[in-house]
Amino acid sequence: MSIETKIKQLAELDSTGMYFDDFLLTWDRSDDEIAAVFKVADILRDMRKSNISPRVFDSGLAVSLFRDNSTRTRFSFSSAANLLGLEVQDLDEGKSQIAHGETVRETANMISFMADVIGIRDDMYIGKGNAYMREVAEAVQQGFDAGILEQRPTLVNLQCDIDHPTQSMADSMHLIQHFGGLENLKGKKIAMSWAYSPSYGKPLSVPQGIIGLMTRFGMDVVLAHPEGYEVMPEVEDIARKNAAASGGSFTKTGSMAEAFDGADIVYPKSWAPFAAMEKRTNLYGAGDMDAIKVLEKELLKQNAEYQEWECTEELMALTRDESALYMHCLPADITAVSCEQGEVAASVFERYRDPLYMEASYKPYVIAAMMFLAKFKDPAGKLSALLQEGPRRIR
Amino acid sequence: MSIETKIKQLAELDSTGMYFDDFLLTWDRSDDEIAAVFKVADILRDMRKSNISPRVFDSGLAVSLFRDNSTRTRFSFSSAANLLGLEVQDLDEGKSQIAHGETVRETANMISFMADVIGIRDDMYIGKGNAYMREVAEAVQQGFDAGILEQRPTLVNLQCDIDHPTQSMADSMHLIQHFGGLENLKGKKIAMSWAYSPSYGKPLSVPQGIIGLMTRFGMDVVLAHPEGYEVMPEVEDIARKNAAASGGSFTKTGSMAEAFDGADIVYPKSWAPFAAMEKRTNLYGAGDMDAIKVLEKELLKQNAEYQEWECTEELMALTRDESALYMHCLPADITAVSCEQGEVAASVFERYRDPLYMEASYKPYVIAAMMFLAKFKDPAGKLSALLQEGPRRIR
Amino acid sequence: MSIETKIKQLAELDSTGMYFDDFLLTWDRSDDEIAAVFKVADILRDMRKSNISPRVFDSGLAVSLFRDNSTRTRFSFSSAANLLGLEVQDLDEGKSQIAHGETVRETANMISFMADVIGIRDDMYIGKGNAYMREVAEAVQQGFDAGILEQRPTLVNLQCDIDHPTQSMADSMHLIQHFGGLENLKGKKIAMSWAYSPSYGKPLSVPQGIIGLMTRFGMDVVLAHPEGYEVMPEVEDIARKNAAASGGSFTKTGSMAEAFDGADIVYPKSWAPFAAMEKRTNLYGAGDMDAIKVLEKELLKQNAEYQEWECTEELMALTRDESALYMHCLPADITAVSCEQGEVAASVFERYRDPLYMEASYKPYVIAAMMFLAKFKDPAGKLSALLQEGPRRIR
Repeated sequence: MSIETKIKQLAELDSTGMYFDDFLLTWDRSDDEIAAVFKVADILRDMRKSNISPRVFDSGLAVSLFRDNSTRTRFSFSSAANLLGLEVQDLDEGKSQIAHGETVRETANMISFMADVIGIRDDMYIGKGNAYMREVAEAVQQGFDAGILEQRPTLVNLQCDIDHPTQSMADSMHLIQHFGGLENLKGKKIAMSWAYSPSYGKPLSVPQGIIGLMTRFGMDVVLAHPEGYEVMPEVEDIARKNAAASGGSFTKTGSMAEAFDGADIVYPKSWAPFAAMEKRTNLYGAGDMDAIKVLEKELLKQNAEYQEWECTEELMALTRDESALYMHCLPADITAVSCEQGEVAASVFERYRDPLYMEASYKPYVIAAMMFLAKFKDPAGKLSALLQEGPRRIR
Repeated sequence: MSIETKIKQLAELDSTGMYFDDFLLTWDRSDDEIAAVFKVADILRDMRKSNISPRVFDSGLAVSLFRDNSTRTRFSFSSAANLLGLEVQDLDEGKSQIAHGETVRETANMISFMADVIGIRDDMYIGKGNAYMREVAEAVQQGFDAGILEQRPTLVNLQCDIDHPTQSMADSMHLIQHFGGLENLKGKKIAMSWAYSPSYGKPLSVPQGIIGLMTRFGMDVVLAHPEGYEVMPEVEDIARKNAAASGGSFTKTGSMAEAFDGADIVYPKSWAPFAAMEKRTNLYGAGDMDAIKVLEKELLKQNAEYQEWECTEELMALTRDESALYMHCLPADITAVSCEQGEVAASVFERYRDPLYMEASYKPYVIAAMMFLAKFKDPAGKLSALLQEGPRRIR
Repeated sequence: MSIETKIKQLAELDSTGMYFDDFLLTWDRSDDEIAAVFKVADILRDMRKSNISPRVFDSGLAVSLFRDNSTRTRFSFSSAANLLGLEVQDLDEGKSQIAHGETVRETANMISFMADVIGIRDDMYIGKGNAYMREVAEAVQQGFDAGILEQRPTLVNLQCDIDHPTQSMADSMHLIQHFGGLENLKGKKIAMSWAYSPSYGKPLSVPQGIIGLMTRFGMDVVLAHPEGYEVMPEVEDIARKNAAASGGSFTKTGSMAEAFDGADIVYPKSWAPFAAMEKRTNLYGAGDMDAIKVLEKELLKQNAEYQEWECTEELMALTRDESALYMHCLPADITAVSCEQGEVAASVFERYRDPLYMEASYKPYVIAAMMFLAKFKDPAGKLSALLQEGPRRIR
């Protein structure tokens, strides 16, 4: 399909709600807006492949705030910003939680005098990450309204305690590409399954992001995990409502095999129990380091009881035509490769390596699309103009 | 006032002395040069607001060297560089003091092969910071004269032991904006007052920068502090000379209330005693860590004797119409918010929050103006051309 | 010589082998390719001096991966990337050695979705650095072939265990400039000599890079070092073959004085014994920290036996006309300046300071030329177009 055709399709979507708004949760956005992100991301990728530069900023900063080490999200954000003409400036406040209230309001304004975009990753503390993003958003809105900030920087959620929209959207683009269109996802079964990992405390935002988004596409979404590894109930509610509206389904099971049975797509990945993460957040708040150590030992012990939750060849054989699409946000804990016993068998991972890397390759474009749609009221018109003017990326 | 009018006003100022020169101390610069910085900063801000990109560099580096953690100055420098088209490259040498002599000369050249600007913040050691900047300036001048460097990078003092020109200039722009013109500052009373803080060792460059600059505008500048918190006598001399020349005044008092009495502007802020900082610098030089610890305890104890030096509502009520403009370089120690007992009452700070953020918002433009004036012999002509050509910032 | 003439000379060189290839070892490249790097670097420098911007990328990332602290190489890489229009993104994995295999393959792809260039410095472990670069190169080639990466990023070796091509090439440009042409290097004697340093474990890549490259220019290359400070035998073999082919010579001596005798150029510099570095690499691999400490003590003791290996005025007096060109990759250990007893006497270093800085100034251009030649099949045509279009660097 030509870029022109894709732009025409984009023009039919109503994405005005994204204009100068933040991208914090996929379920805050309309179906048209979600579709517009996919479309713009796809067009930007096509343009870059055709050596057309979609550089829409002559200058401007994209501020990144990572509360956690991150190589791939950092590079994705940098790539997206650079593609559009923004320079990344890191706000490095250390991994310690930032004081709220006055300090957040002040810092948010101080970094935004020439910022067009702020990307935040804050996934460590249940009940805090998304709330922090909303606090920053409110602060820059106030600063803009008071005439302090010339432009209102828009936020991109690079992973919080609730959702991981750039991941779930990139994952969706991978599925759209793999199955030949968003409409083809209807009726497909995806198993979002917990898997064993020798480490603990992995964020819940990936499974939550997946069930909160994929249920919108008419898919049969199955969430599988051992008892005690529940995700946030509010997100399950959203998944249920989405499924009802889209004609798909959202079910839960305590068996990996049941989830894999006849699945078109499997997404086996470790995460921490929601309740334990909530407890840990409170212990951090209270500064009770001894209790945290005890909790961590308990969590590792709890994990160890479910070592059989591994994506093996045997389990893959249960999937549709024994060849479901295996997905992961990477890096995966690969049995006998990156750890003794992990989330996935080496032979399964190895067979899907190229698709996994391809899955990851959509993230920079998804982020760029989120930035783009927040800055242009008529994205189709703007992209069309870029296509006409034809500036080359490599000149 | 239109951008064109402002450019015409700029054209009447003689800023040729700034061409390819460093900006190290405001009192090294003529009145016309100071006014030109304000004017260019104002024009650059207007241009950005009008979506005109003043990107004058197609490539080039702006090297930053921070001896101290800094979020707001770092972002201001980055923003300024990015606005003009330069990419920031940090020279991270750790917080330890850099050896002088051969090493400075060598490093200064090694980082400057493609550097147009070097921004340095070095405010920790009395007698060292500004001297270090002059050493770097001399080194790159030698490198340029010897044909090693293609261009002579110009320096911007981002805070030293003597002056903090980007702060005092941004503060001045805030006053110019607030009172409707530089000429309206004549006769206004500003109280630059020490205030209590539970931390110690805060640099003297802010009060020194303020008394060294504001006395040039015909203002009545009052410096207030408890006994023992004297600033550098050389800077007081400059303030006295400035006041005599401008028709303003420079006076000192040991009473915060006296300073606030009838003041149009108040700037209550903690700083360390000059003599103690000098002693500490020598102890660091001698590596006498035990003596430093003793000194620090003494300083905290000394501070604690002056806890009543707080900008309260009672003190604010003494000012002109009970509503002087409250200023601070941020972050402030706010009583009962960021500390138990601090520089300013929460209600005062809260009331002035928007103006305080606005005050800070001028710094990126002041820095950009300093860079700009160092690179263009005919700044008005250049800005006029940029205005004509009309490249958009967001394309 | 005009830029046009230089471009014409470039057009006569066959550099097609560099197109979309990596620059890992100088001896992997043909004579024409080596000459093309010098020529492009020279043209880029001329262009920048003439305020012509050779910015060929509208956007794109230059990923840097330093396993070791580095100020000058970091700035050279940043400068080169910025000159061509690429933004540097650091991959900071700490100094610990990165796991090989799966992790390298994955990381290499994850950072490359929008990367045009990857620069790697990995010089600490004998047998590992160059191998790691080749692993990264293979990974991105696979990613490109599988359609995961849109462009195949090309690698630049910023120093490995075997070679330091950006250093030896910059050094060569300095010689070309100093002696008035590449052809004038024929018959010149260069003494690449070990020198005493109070630190240990300095990489061998500089002496190896010098003997592996300078022997190609018909020079008489003498390698001097105390017994036990042998370099890699494979590189000596290359030097011998090069010398035979170019009509120069490659000889070894255990006497600094003999090496300096009649030399046109001297390059006295400390390095670690190859065998000891190999042993240390193995000890690191085994995690035997106690043995490493013992080894380090032995090495310092061994170094200390050769304190007379210093580039003194007496030794300089043995060189041609008592005025050989003194070279160093910097920073040097200067006796009585940066250490008690070091590689070079203060008076010698001082006399050659400007030439030494000039030597270093070629590195950014050499790196930019390596990047440029990897991206344009017809570099002469591209440079000619840039010259015609005449975009200004400072607009």
